[in-house]
Amino acid sequence: MEEINHVLGYPDLLIVQDPQMLRFSLDAVLLSHFVTIPAKCQSILDIGCGNAPVPLILSRRTKARIVGVEIQEAVADLAKKSVDLNHLEEQISIITGDVKEYAKEQESDQFDVIVCNPPFFPLCEETLTNVSEYKRIARHEFCLTLEDLFKSARKLLKNGGVIGIVHRPDRLVDVLSCMREHHIEPKRIQLIYPREGKEAHMLLVEGAKDGKPGLRILPPIYVHESDGSYTLALQQFFE
Amino acid sequence: MEEINHVLGYPDLLIVQDPQMLRFSLDAVLLSHFVTIPAKCQSILDIGCGNAPVPLILSRRTKARIVGVEIQEAVADLAKKSVDLNHLEEQISIITGDVKEYAKEQESDQFDVIVCNPPFFPLCEETLTNVSEYKRIARHEFCLTLEDLFKSARKLLKNGGVIGIVHRPDRLVDVLSCMREHHIEPKRIQLIYPREGKEAHMLLVEGAKDGKPGLRILPPIYVHESDGSYTLALQQFFE
Repeated sequence: MEEINHVLGYPDLLIVQDPQMLRFSLDAVLLSHFVTIPAKCQSILDIGCGNAPVPLILSRRTKARIVGVEIQEAVADLAKKSVDLNHLEEQISIITGDVKEYAKEQESDQFDVIVCNPPFFPLCEETLTNVSEYKRIARHEFCLTLEDLFKSARKLLKNGGVIGIVHRPDRLVDVLSCMREHHIEPKRIQLIYPREGKEAHMLLVEGAKDGKPGLRILPPIYVHESDGSYTLALQQFFE
Repeated sequence: MEEINHVLGYPDLLIVQDPQMLRFSLDAVLLSHFVTIPAKCQSILDIGCGNAPVPLILSRRTKARIVGVEIQEAVADLAKKSVDLNHLEEQISIITGDVKEYAKEQESDQFDVIVCNPPFFPLCEETLTNVSEYKRIARHEFCLTLEDLFKSARKLLKNGGVIGIVHRPDRLVDVLSCMREHHIEPKRIQLIYPREGKEAHMLLVEGAKDGKPGLRILPPIYVHESDGSYTLALQQFFE
C-alpha cells in the first residue's frame, strides 16, 4: 500500500513510498549531502533512482536538471508521483528503463554529476530466495553490477564530471578497483559509523572521470550517540 | 649524531637514533599495535625496518622470531645497536640488504606476519633534490615500490599469513589495487585522523595472502584532542 511521507530534513518535500517495495533510507540522505555539486552544474543523473529520494533532496541543493533512471516500473511510477506531488516536473525527469540500455542510446559526455545507491550484495544463490522481486533487484547485483555502473557512468559523464555512490565498506576494494578500471579516479571517501567505537557500516565514494590520483578521506560521520539519539551531524541533515 | 631514546610507551625499551637520518615516528607505533599477531605466530618480517622501532615494540607483543631487513647500512647498524642494547639478539635479527634480493634468495611461505612502513611518496624529479640520501630512500619509492613490496610479501608469507602496512590515505587506491593484484586480500583498514573534524592523514591496512574478500573498517583513531593533548587512544600506546 502506498503512503506519503516527508523527506527527512525537508518539511516541504513529500515522497510516495510502498513499504512492500523499499522505503528510502539513510543511505539516500547521506549520498545526497555528500556528492559535490559544482557551481555551474547543469545536469545530474541518478542511476537506479528508486522512488527518487536523491533527486528530491538534490532539487533543494541545485537548479540543475535531474534525470532518474529506474528499471522497476512500479518503483519508477512511485518516483513520478513524488515528482508531481512536489511540482518538480520541470526539474526532475524519471525514466523507466535499464541504465545499460539508456547509456547505449544516449550521447556521451552529457552529465556533470552522477549519483547511485546501487545494489549492495553480489549475486549468490542463497540471496535469491525468500525475497520479493522488488527487493531482490534493489539489493542484489541482479540488474546492475559495479561493472555496469561505472561503464555507463564513464560514457555519460562529462570529462572531469563526478560520480558519487554509497556502498558497504566490505565492497571498498571492489568499488575502488572498478572505478579505476573505468578511468574514474576516486577523489573523496567518507565513512559512516553507527556510533563511536564501532566498525564502519556505510561508505561514500566520489570519483572524477579522467581525474588525477589524489584521494582525500573526509572526517568520519557517526549516526548515533552512545544513548541512541542521533548525533548533531545527522540532525543537521534531518532538521 | 647518535642518540638513545626510550621507545614510546615502553620505558624498558631503548632505541638508537640519528636525527640526520630519520627518527622513528608515530607511524611505527601505530603499525606495531595494529597488525594482527596470531597466537601461534612463529616468525615476523619487517621490510625496511629502519632503526627497528617496529621489531622492538613487537618483541613485547610476541615471542616469535623477528627479522628486520634494511637496505641502508648505516641505518641497519643503528637497528643492530638497538637490538643489542635491549638484549634482544635471540629474538630479533637485522639483515642489511635489499628485500627484493632477500625475497629471491629465501624459501617461500616462511613468515606468519609481515610488517612494513614503506616509503610514502612516488618518485618524481622535484622530490629528489634537497633531501639527504637517507631520507630520500626512506621516504620515496626509490628502492621499494608498492609493487616490490607486495611481490616480495606474496612470496615470503605463509598461505593465510598477514601483512600490515602504514601509508598515506592518498595512496589508498594504489595500496588496495596492488595488494589484490598479488592475491593479498585487504581484510582490515583503520584510519588515523589528526583530530576530530580533520581529514585522515594516516592509513593502516592489513591483508591476508590468498584471503577471501571481506574487508572491515575499524573505528577511527584520533591523535589529538581539540586542546592539542594526545587522546586517550594514543595515550594507551604511549604509557
